[in-house]
Amino acid sequence: MSQDVPESITEDPRVDVAELGEQLLGRWADVRRTARALAAEPRTQKIEGQSMAEHRERVLDQLGYLVEQKSVHRAFPKRMGGEENPGGNIAGFEELVVADPSLQIKAGVQWGLFGSAVLHLGTSEHHDAWLPGIMSLEIPGAFAMTEIGHGSDVASIATTATYDPAAEEFVVHTPFRAAWKDYLGNAALHGKAAVVFAQLITAGVNHGVHAFYVPIRDENGFLPGIGGEDDGLKGGLNGIDNGRLHFDNVRIPRTNLLNRYGDVAADGTYSSPIESPGRRFFTMLGTLVQGRVSLDGAATAASKVALQIAVGYANERRQFNASSDTTEEVLLDYQRHQRRLLPRIATTYAMSFAHEELLEKFHEVFSQDATDDARQDLETLAAALKPLSTWNALDILQECREACGGAGFIVKNRFTSLRADLDIYVTFEGDNNVLLQLVAKRLLADYAEEFRKLDAGALTRYVARRAEGVALNQSGLRQLAQTWTDAGSEKRSANFLKDPGTQRNLLAERVRTMVAEVAEDLKGAGKLPQARAAAVFNERQEQIISAARAHAELLQWEAFTRQVELVEDPGTRSVLTWLRDLFGLCLIERDLGWFQMSGLLSSQRARTLGPYINRLLARLRPHAQDLVDAFGYTQEHLRAEIVTGIEAERQEEAMAYFRTLRASADAPIDEKIILARKRAAEKSAKKARAGK
Amino acid sequence: MSQDVPESITEDPRVDVAELGEQLLGRWADVRRTARALAAEPRTQKIEGQSMAEHRERVLDQLGYLVEQKSVHRAFPKRMGGEENPGGNIAGFEELVVADPSLQIKAGVQWGLFGSAVLHLGTSEHHDAWLPGIMSLEIPGAFAMTEIGHGSDVASIATTATYDPAAEEFVVHTPFRAAWKDYLGNAALHGKAAVVFAQLITAGVNHGVHAFYVPIRDENGFLPGIGGEDDGLKGGLNGIDNGRLHFDNVRIPRTNLLNRYGDVAADGTYSSPIESPGRRFFTMLGTLVQGRVSLDGAATAASKVALQIAVGYANERRQFNASSDTTEEVLLDYQRHQRRLLPRIATTYAMSFAHEELLEKFHEVFSQDATDDARQDLETLAAALKPLSTWNALDILQECREACGGAGFIVKNRFTSLRADLDIYVTFEGDNNVLLQLVAKRLLADYAEEFRKLDAGALTRYVARRAEGVALNQSGLRQLAQTWTDAGSEKRSANFLKDPGTQRNLLAERVRTMVAEVAEDLKGAGKLPQARAAAVFNERQEQIISAARAHAELLQWEAFTRQVELVEDPGTRSVLTWLRDLFGLCLIERDLGWFQMSGLLSSQRARTLGPYINRLLARLRPHAQDLVDAFGYTQEHLRAEIVTGIEAERQEEAMAYFRTLRASADAPIDEKIILARKRAAEKSAKKARAGK
Repeated sequence: MSQDVPESITEDPRVDVAELGEQLLGRWADVRRTARALAAEPRTQKIEGQSMAEHRERVLDQLGYLVEQKSVHRAFPKRMGGEENPGGNIAGFEELVVADPSLQIKAGVQWGLFGSAVLHLGTSEHHDAWLPGIMSLEIPGAFAMTEIGHGSDVASIATTATYDPAAEEFVVHTPFRAAWKDYLGNAALHGKAAVVFAQLITAGVNHGVHAFYVPIRDENGFLPGIGGEDDGLKGGLNGIDNGRLHFDNVRIPRTNLLNRYGDVAADGTYSSPIESPGRRFFTMLGTLVQGRVSLDGAATAASKVALQIAVGYANERRQFNASSDTTEEVLLDYQRHQRRLLPRIATTYAMSFAHEELLEKFHEVFSQDATDDARQDLETLAAALKPLSTWNALDILQECREACGGAGFIVKNRFTSLRADLDIYVTFEGDNNVLLQLVAKRLLADYAEEFRKLDAGALTRYVARRAEGVALNQSGLRQLAQTWTDAGSEKRSANFLKDPGTQRNLLAERVRTMVAEVAEDLKGAGKLPQARAAAVFNERQEQIISAARAHAELLQWEAFTRQVELVEDPGTRSVLTWLRDLFGLCLIERDLGWFQMSGLLSSQRARTLGPYINRLLARLRPHAQDLVDAFGYTQEHLRAEIVTGIEAERQEEAMAYFRTLRASADAPIDEKIILARKRAAEKSAKKARAGK
Repeated sequence: MSQDVPESITEDPRVDVAELGEQLLGRWADVRRTARALAAEPRTQKIEGQSMAEHRERVLDQLGYLVEQKSVHRAFPKRMGGEENPGGNIAGFEELVVADPSLQIKAGVQWGLFGSAVLHLGTSEHHDAWLPGIMSLEIPGAFAMTEIGHGSDVASIATTATYDPAAEEFVVHTPFRAAWKDYLGNAALHGKAAVVFAQLITAGVNHGVHAFYVPIRDENGFLPGIGGEDDGLKGGLNGIDNGRLHFDNVRIPRTNLLNRYGDVAADGTYSSPIESPGRRFFTMLGTLVQGRVSLDGAATAASKVALQIAVGYANERRQFNASSDTTEEVLLDYQRHQRRLLPRIATTYAMSFAHEELLEKFHEVFSQDATDDARQDLETLAAALKPLSTWNALDILQECREACGGAGFIVKNRFTSLRADLDIYVTFEGDNNVLLQLVAKRLLADYAEEFRKLDAGALTRYVARRAEGVALNQSGLRQLAQTWTDAGSEKRSANFLKDPGTQRNLLAERVRTMVAEVAEDLKGAGKLPQARAAAVFNERQEQIISAARAHAELLQWEAFTRQVELVEDPGTRSVLTWLRDLFGLCLIERDLGWFQMSGLLSSQRARTLGPYINRLLARLRPHAQDLVDAFGYTQEHLRAEIVTGIEAERQEEAMAYFRTLRASADAPIDEKIILARKRAAEKSAKKARAGK
């Protein structure tokens, strides 16, 4: 990959909005366009202020409309009317967030979780039996994995499915209250069936978590042995009927076990193509990675909408008149406002480009029989990106809402509604902190693996080199060296910072150092007694999660950089390069304490970072509107009164009024002016008297 | 003030929860207790899921109940049935947030803004005429200051009140759409009158913004010339009928001018006790500082409720079993969970103690004819603390919600509802960013003043000293000196960090340095042409706001430290000292980049900060429950299912089930155990064969 992205190719760059927009749409641009057209129809959009009951019915009805529009079957087998296009399916699905996040997530429950479980964990008989009804929405279904007592720790769920060879049936049972399934979309009202995850027990052996297809309701309500509760009002997503389910020794046919990765013969004999119970468990869960992938994309889409609204408003709204007596400043001309919005535009570009790569990898894995390694890479990537993008989305939505002041708080301007709906994205489909911990464990395993592969000589050399580096850092000598190199030259330091090689090295070195430090600290912990080993790990938990976060940020930065290198239009490329620099340097600024104490940045260079970021902001400011326009959402998607031009109209009306007034004889004089004149007159009178 | 707060007075400290609770309740403990009793009544509490219309009616009705309970008249004159107790009034008022933030804010609109404006800007005739009706709620009223076009920039509002000497009337007029009053509580439905802020024009002179009492509705709706719009659904606070008002040449009697700080005689002559129009404007606005004061307190109260819920849950909820095969870990035993919650407890203590000092100052100023200086100090303090506490409250509510996972998202567990309601606190009664900028301007003015007072010799010495310090910092030599002093001893560095003198010096030096840097940069800007001066200022806006934030954090730290020194119980004092250290060190950690690049902390010492904070977390962890229990809210205030003990019950039921199962013959064996046995058997068989 080329490192020499020039800082500025043209002197006065312009962004080619259409081309950049096309690049952002990515590989499945057509699918996205189709989905956006659907999301532009009032038929699919959220009606704010509906009661929970109305909203739930509306979204169910909208799901039917999605079926009619053939917009939700792209991932299913061609022989059943699908397209076998997993990547395109997610691309289209995640755009629905722009219509109503409840619609997106309820569709996700139906086709992405419930339907996917039957598709990926079941075999062709199951497909034939249930997929047509699932696809047509004849069978709305729940994905009954989470329990009251266990969310992210799926392996510990307590619902059991015990095989009874006499009846050739499984008995599904929730033995206590904490084992009740919870937070399940479609469970409170609409679900007719559920894929229930339970510990499979046969012949006295627990083979771990497996998935079972369980009918739960008919037209008369719950089937015998099944009960539930409505989760009631939530902080958002109230168009979805989340609820609880419990099972009192409910019997289902043996063949309702979704048996792709584990089967039970009529006599109760268990068999599986994957011998290791651990690997089998992770393989089954891995087929459901698409939830995380799509949340990453939906969070990115919502961030784009928010920024289009807030930047549009910030380019029209005026407040305070510092630089002129008659004209107030446009909000986005304030440095603080630039600081609030522009780095978030940069982050959203990073999220968007990184998501596109995630989607490609997802498509690759699910389009063919992928290797275990490819699947694990995909899962790690999804676990790394989803936390960042979902947290970022909340941060972006909130900052945009605040940047629009009181108007941002009015529901018709979108932010508060989107934020409320997206809130749960940070803890569902894997709690963000838990996901980052998974990523960290993978990083630590890779690190250990790397060492295993090295011969003894290489290892010794590596350790010696590292020790030397650490000594150099900790003594502060490396920092002094940087200081002397720059010799107080801010320009030299700025050149250093804007070099993509520098940014990459700093971000990559951060991950390497953090992982190596934790690995060193944990060395030998595996041989300690369990409780002590857990304590040693726990004492580093914060560090471990920081390392994973640093890793994910590096991935975003790299994806952004790869896309910059693909841009052909020189103006667009210049602006996008600045934006990438802004992204990278803001990442470094946020962790500036770490970069200095690790010895990677001298305090002298650190001091030039803030001013350089401010210069980047000023350079990017004229392109802010283009950069958000390239996101490509139209008024039908934004649906925010403040960005319809109403603000500019009001300002023009006000300015015209004052112009007319100033030109007229009626204009009242400001008391301050009279006072100033009076003082001047007194002064000259005094002078005159003194001169007399 | 003594600096030698000992780190640990007793070996195994216990918190005296009752005594600490009393200290937190502060000077107006009795008023708070009374208000909390009121907030514990279902009569005053929010019913989640009500429609906007129902919620608005309920809150109006609740306002009547507050009148009956005599809980809202404490600030009014004794001769009218009040208590002339401004501090106590706010203390009681802010506790209402725990019942329903809409109730708090609608009460604030009625008695804190509308009523206060009549009280503080009007004179005795106005009091006699309108205060009884305002106090009894016979006259619900709006506080019509903000316009669509101008929020924080009150001086620029465009509504006019032009005096007509022939009729002895003011003509109130909104000349264009942007001049419409907006976001006014009581405007959409319930308001019968409004205090309208408008440019007072008489005899062709504009005397600036003044307040006018304007009847707006009778039983038939809007009075002639008055119209309005409903702001509709908001992100929260939907129990309040916010709306817009516009005035088409509406005539009111001359005497409806609230004339304490500016009057117009029958012939149109203007007079004011304050000659300077600028000072007059700020004096009038200053009487309304209580809005900011009370938001600071309400944000603190909401944070306490959230932390009581989240910490209670984190002490019962178990997830993942790292350290034992049979028992899962309590959430709060995870380091990451401690990192998420404990520093926020510390912040809430800091907010609470700083708020109490703010309230005392407020009470002092409003109980007597305070000096201009005292008023300005109060305004600066309120402008510094309100942004921090309202932003912190959103951060705390969100982190608590995430820390409770899916359960945190269910409305009945409070977080999402409180967060939605408190969202607007960060931009109303002064946008947080604008307020911090006001604080910074005051800091810069004080800095300039300090220099004016110094003689030339002192000034030269100061500048020389500063230059020397900067050189020392920038060369990195001071850092090296710290490194050599510590000579790699982590203990020595930890002793340095936990010394309150160190914390104070670091936090104070940060403010001094930041202010001095900006002041130096701005030197001479005043003499530049207006546009250029504005640009110079704008280029430092981010720095300026950072300086104000640093100042506010120092104030919080100092308030916390003063309260630690008042604690007599040795156990409580030890724990509170750790908590103060955690607060101070987390502030330093968050800005660790700055502390290193300014040369105040060596990278060596910076490296010991994180580990030392982790040690503090472990030390504080056993006291977490006591620390939140001391906030003193009861189940009636928390009203969150997850902290009723239901979680512990469920866990016990589950554990009992597994205990019984393990003891029984029916317990299924884990496949992993069978596999392990099989491998062991194969291994020994192989050995046996090899030995043969």
